[in-house]
Amino acid sequence: MENRVYNLNAGPAILPEEVLKEAQEQLFALPGVGMSVLEISHRSKAFDAILADAKNGVKQLLDISDDYHILFLQGGASLQFSMVPLNLIPPKNKADYIITGVWSKKALKEAKRVGTVNIAASTEAENFKRIPKQDELKLDTDAAYVHYTSNNTIYGTEWHSEPEVGNVPLVCDASSDIFHKKINMNKYGMIYAGAQKNIGPSGVVLAILRKDLLERSQDSLHTMLNYKTHAENDSLYNTPNVFGIYIIALVTKYLLKNGGLDAMYKTNLAKAGLIYEAIDGSGGFYKGHADKDSRSLMNITWRLPSEELEKKFTDEATKAQFIGLKGHRSVGGIRASVYNAFPLKGAEALVQFMNEFKSKNG
Amino acid sequence: MENRVYNLNAGPAILPEEVLKEAQEQLFALPGVGMSVLEISHRSKAFDAILADAKNGVKQLLDISDDYHILFLQGGASLQFSMVPLNLIPPKNKADYIITGVWSKKALKEAKRVGTVNIAASTEAENFKRIPKQDELKLDTDAAYVHYTSNNTIYGTEWHSEPEVGNVPLVCDASSDIFHKKINMNKYGMIYAGAQKNIGPSGVVLAILRKDLLERSQDSLHTMLNYKTHAENDSLYNTPNVFGIYIIALVTKYLLKNGGLDAMYKTNLAKAGLIYEAIDGSGGFYKGHADKDSRSLMNITWRLPSEELEKKFTDEATKAQFIGLKGHRSVGGIRASVYNAFPLKGAEALVQFMNEFKSKNG
Repeated sequence: MENRVYNLNAGPAILPEEVLKEAQEQLFALPGVGMSVLEISHRSKAFDAILADAKNGVKQLLDISDDYHILFLQGGASLQFSMVPLNLIPPKNKADYIITGVWSKKALKEAKRVGTVNIAASTEAENFKRIPKQDELKLDTDAAYVHYTSNNTIYGTEWHSEPEVGNVPLVCDASSDIFHKKINMNKYGMIYAGAQKNIGPSGVVLAILRKDLLERSQDSLHTMLNYKTHAENDSLYNTPNVFGIYIIALVTKYLLKNGGLDAMYKTNLAKAGLIYEAIDGSGGFYKGHADKDSRSLMNITWRLPSEELEKKFTDEATKAQFIGLKGHRSVGGIRASVYNAFPLKGAEALVQFMNEFKSKNG
Repeated sequence: MENRVYNLNAGPAILPEEVLKEAQEQLFALPGVGMSVLEISHRSKAFDAILADAKNGVKQLLDISDDYHILFLQGGASLQFSMVPLNLIPPKNKADYIITGVWSKKALKEAKRVGTVNIAASTEAENFKRIPKQDELKLDTDAAYVHYTSNNTIYGTEWHSEPEVGNVPLVCDASSDIFHKKINMNKYGMIYAGAQKNIGPSGVVLAILRKDLLERSQDSLHTMLNYKTHAENDSLYNTPNVFGIYIIALVTKYLLKNGGLDAMYKTNLAKAGLIYEAIDGSGGFYKGHADKDSRSLMNITWRLPSEELEKKFTDEATKAQFIGLKGHRSVGGIRASVYNAFPLKGAEALVQFMNEFKSKNG
């Protein structure tokens, strides 16, 4: 078995070792089935059980009522950027978008192809270093929905509570922080999330959709782009990403066994807390990009005094087995992505590395 | 390690054991990377190499020239049913479809949402038991493209050579028989194929597209539905199905190592030959659904004298570890799917089972 590194990638990202081991053990032949999970029919009893496990896992973790469909689709959050407006904008034909980063902007771009879009708020002028405050939101009470991005991987910002949007359905791209803590699903019309951070591998997108919103989906939509197709066929209209859903079943089982989302949140607070402490206690050597009250628990972004030092930092970090720390080009500097599966001891080791690096170069 | 059964599923389907073993060995951590393939970034060097391997594997197996893009997309062939007309119908706004089964009809349904569709031929009146002959095709020389389905899983029919369509680009859904033999790619404008039969696991669709056809894709298309998006970003506009592409890299490597598609074709002829021989030599006990000159090498369909005997056949077959033999409800009876990875010894064992069953029940 190969040694594993500290995986701080923004996504696809680290998964629980226990899940990887279980998947590895079963990869040649699922117990009692005699075929690999890569070979089973999506219409088989074996897959029925896997799909039920994945759905129930999501349902239990987020305490989702029967008012919602839980769907596993393909095409990532990027295809949801189109499917959301195509399905949910009619008949009002207008929606509110809150812009907190590149991903919000990509969602906005596709929505504009479908209907009228109101930018309820944007922090782009400040390079997305913060989440807008409630009183900054210019909401249209007649909008079809309000769309926002709960966590912004590139900038390291995160909404700490949902925007208040009254009776307008709230639609959230939670790709990069779903499952990081408990939420009240009843506040949402829809949540969607690419799996490749806290849920599972890439190639599946989770969509949780309030059932009454399906009424908006027009029959004129292309079959695969219509939420009704997938809801009415329990994600089995066509062959889904069987392996991806299998890993989601294992990940949700693992999360439930390990204390659920409250336990995750506690560890996430501890992990991010250590790293933010190292930044704040560095006497200005490390400088956080995000405003303190907008800081993300999943992606921590900071700069060093110079780009040369930033390069030295990531080079030495890579040698020390911390992988994926280079910041996105639109922010620069360093980004540490510490999703659910990233261990506390990894955060401790990173902080030790940060402190030593500062001592030698500060 | 679990015992494995004879997997005769129509798809997702059997994969080479060697591929499964290699994937299993590496699942916890890719050699030299220290992360699982489920955790690596799609922007990493490790994935660059995997994607290059998968592309080169496809390119070599089908001897594809540089005139074509090789793309790995999501949403299965079902999403291609929409993407093909959305991208390729303009500006002519009309296309020819040859209808040989349920999947052709599904492709047709989405094309009708986009433009005018001419049904060049259909064998539906004969329950799709044969492929139309060249002189039956009513082709429009001014069509944007001609679409056909090379193999029809449900009916067990297959085109043994491409329809002749002159200068009109030929677009083929080859989901269920790609890689089963060599083809002349230059005859095609585009081939697409869900991976879950001869290519890899479900959740990836291979699209091979002649580069000049990209000119047709309009900027008004939703970003994820535009072939230009994926071609210009080498399948990495958004996070692809990393694991799926990894398995494709392993499968294509395996095929190349084992004699390429000529060797596959030889074995496929032998496997299907044995089973068709058992049908034809059964004195009418087994009766093939497909016309002899339209028979598929991938999916072999036949009936027994009664539905009771058909049920008994599949029940006893299941006990004997032959899994997935129940025919599709629109044909009934038995279907044996013997894709590339299904072993010759499996076909021999099935024939022995068929002969014994006939002796006892004929």
